Amino acid sequence: MTAIDRERSTARIAGDLETLSGPGYTLTHEAIRRYAYTPPYRRTLDYFTRELEALGFTVTEDPVGTLVARNRPPGEPVFGVGSHCDSNRNGGRYDGTMGVVTALEVCRLNEEHGLGLPLQLISFLEEEGSGFGQMLLGSRIMLQRVTEEDLRERFRALDDGRSFWEHAEEAGYEPARWRESSRVLDDLTGWIEMHIEQARVLQDTGNRIGLVHAIAGYVHADVHVEGRGDHAGATPMDLRLDPTTVLAETVLELERLAVAAGRGTVGTVGEIEVDPGLINAIASRVRFSLDIRGPEDDAYRGVATAIGSFAQEAARRRGMEARVTERQTLPATPLDTRIVGALEEAARATGEPFMRMHSGAAHDTMCVAERVPSAMVFVPCKDGISHHPAEEARPADAALAAGIILDAIAALS
Amino acid sequence: MTAIDRERSTARIAGDLETLSGPGYTLTHEAIRRYAYTPPYRRTLDYFTRELEALGFTVTEDPVGTLVARNRPPGEPVFGVGSHCDSNRNGGRYDGTMGVVTALEVCRLNEEHGLGLPLQLISFLEEEGSGFGQMLLGSRIMLQRVTEEDLRERFRALDDGRSFWEHAEEAGYEPARWRESSRVLDDLTGWIEMHIEQARVLQDTGNRIGLVHAIAGYVHADVHVEGRGDHAGATPMDLRLDPTTVLAETVLELERLAVAAGRGTVGTVGEIEVDPGLINAIASRVRFSLDIRGPEDDAYRGVATAIGSFAQEAARRRGMEARVTERQTLPATPLDTRIVGALEEAARATGEPFMRMHSGAAHDTMCVAERVPSAMVFVPCKDGISHHPAEEARPADAALAAGIILDAIAALS
Repeated sequence: MTAIDRERSTARIAGDLETLSGPGYTLTHEAIRRYAYTPPYRRTLDYFTRELEALGFTVTEDPVGTLVARNRPPGEPVFGVGSHCDSNRNGGRYDGTMGVVTALEVCRLNEEHGLGLPLQLISFLEEEGSGFGQMLLGSRIMLQRVTEEDLRERFRALDDGRSFWEHAEEAGYEPARWRESSRVLDDLTGWIEMHIEQARVLQDTGNRIGLVHAIAGYVHADVHVEGRGDHAGATPMDLRLDPTTVLAETVLELERLAVAAGRGTVGTVGEIEVDPGLINAIASRVRFSLDIRGPEDDAYRGVATAIGSFAQEAARRRGMEARVTERQTLPATPLDTRIVGALEEAARATGEPFMRMHSGAAHDTMCVAERVPSAMVFVPCKDGISHHPAEEARPADAALAAGIILDAIAALS
Repeated sequence: MTAIDRERSTARIAGDLETLSGPGYTLTHEAIRRYAYTPPYRRTLDYFTRELEALGFTVTEDPVGTLVARNRPPGEPVFGVGSHCDSNRNGGRYDGTMGVVTALEVCRLNEEHGLGLPLQLISFLEEEGSGFGQMLLGSRIMLQRVTEEDLRERFRALDDGRSFWEHAEEAGYEPARWRESSRVLDDLTGWIEMHIEQARVLQDTGNRIGLVHAIAGYVHADVHVEGRGDHAGATPMDLRLDPTTVLAETVLELERLAVAAGRGTVGTVGEIEVDPGLINAIASRVRFSLDIRGPEDDAYRGVATAIGSFAQEAARRRGMEARVTERQTLPATPLDTRIVGALEEAARATGEPFMRMHSGAAHDTMCVAERVPSAMVFVPCKDGISHHPAEEARPADAALAAGIILDAIAALS
């Protein structure tokens, strides 16, 4: 275990975060708003470049703009650390950026303590999708989970409607070479991403560190219930086809099913649209969303199947019809037990409270893990708030994470 | 029982409706859109004026524009018939206007058959509130249920924001004399309003006529539930404060309570607002409306009180808070048993299927009944659709209603 001065690490991490949330690094002072190819984003990459070059790293960018810094020449094995430094449009200082800053701190400690670990830092492009509405864009490009058609035509800037391709070229990149982005992972022997938790499990259980053994998969779908829009005053209870009753039964059944499934399964109705939506009109139709997730595919997919059937049956029982349309399904990502184990040993050695957990949110590591043994480390964020200017996490926890990651990599090397 | 040629009545009623839904009588050809002080509204009043003057009626307008036609001089007792001839902004041909047309037919039959019944036809101003956002405006002015401040300042045109007062003066009326509108009811010995049902009870029970013995009162309120907006993927089921579950329980309990209360009680959640309303976010708060009605005050008010407590308790049980805010409460209006009885006898004599029922919707008769013994007659409208261009009702049913109303008035005189 490396004898780290955690206060010094805390100060450096706090300083980096302070700088990167200041003027020049965000498009608005009311939130962090930073996304691909904007001046604040460019300046953020430049900041990391300068700091990493000062440590003797060679810094490059892949053909679309993901930053890659290594302390070994290409072809030699390296261990990967990093996250993303873009934000959602009304974001906070910590989501993503704290992970890159912590990875930078791992690189600093490696030099400072003369450990000589072979490292590669990655800061992924467009994790949040604020520029082009596409989440995990940089890591999906790296994993070839997009098509050239997507990049040339389909993915368009939220700001001006012009294509990703055009914007990337204008920013000086070579999107035509996007397939070469996959080489970034070629030399990696492992990968660890640090991130804020984005929920309140660590806070509510009093843990400072979460060791992520799996990233949840999910089903995103919509339920459309067709009722009959009648006058709310003039239509007797027994002549109604009120679709809000089907919504209500489904919301409660989803809660019951998710709890019963256990194993980290969760289910949420986050969007509800009522048509026509007037106080004195029985709704003619209702649409609501389903977000069903979990680290174990059979568990959450079972809930998704069951709730779809339930909604259709509930509608049928009341003389209505319900239709379920799927938006997207993504399988769960189990992470590497050897890396998680090394992190666990390093965490235990610190004497600080930690726990194993899964990630309910999606991360670039979902893509990386397809090719490289991977794990993640979470730190608490206050009240679980993220994607909001009120987002808050402690640099001291990040410093603790940096030491644990460093020790784990040393143990694995 | 007067031996009426119902086919002739049907033809006249159909003709009036055809004319009044044609060019010049609506602001758009895609719907009936007609409200106070617009040229189509003026032409509609002129049409009724011409037809009634041809029958020997004296036609006047009250100080704000409610049309009043009598076949007896002021001071002599008369029986009132009528409805309103304005529409909602995306309206159909029948709501209101068919009632005035049927009242006109009653006046025609009275002359045609030489019955010499003393009659007064009223066509109320702004029942729908399309001009100034104020429902039952003409009858509320007549009953002094508004203030001068309302008319001068608070009630403003949806189109241009100018005051009711200004618009009324510009149209040639004398709003300063609004209190004299109450005199319109001075000589009435009774009042019958014919209207389309606006629901599907008559259609579904196979009745051609509904005799209305009461108009439902209602409670309009909102429930606000404060939950906690967390990440839908990352927040375990047992750490959630999801306000949509309180919405769901309340929707189902409202249904249960309304059915259990019986006696015509109905309850509806028509508006649902979820904040932030994203598929991957547990809602931080939910607002939903309550519309609870019935012809018996103790029944529907009991449901309103019970559902408010239920929502608060349901929220509390889950660690959240619910707040109930009332928008408006209006007591039920029992109608006159003697007039309803006379209508019943006249209806029975026709041999056509009819039923006693209450009105779930509000009508000008709610105001008139405060001073004059009143009743209403409903005719079916197709599939219960109203306030929409697809609204449909049969002139033959209106002709049947005209004969029944005429006979009831004759029996009461």
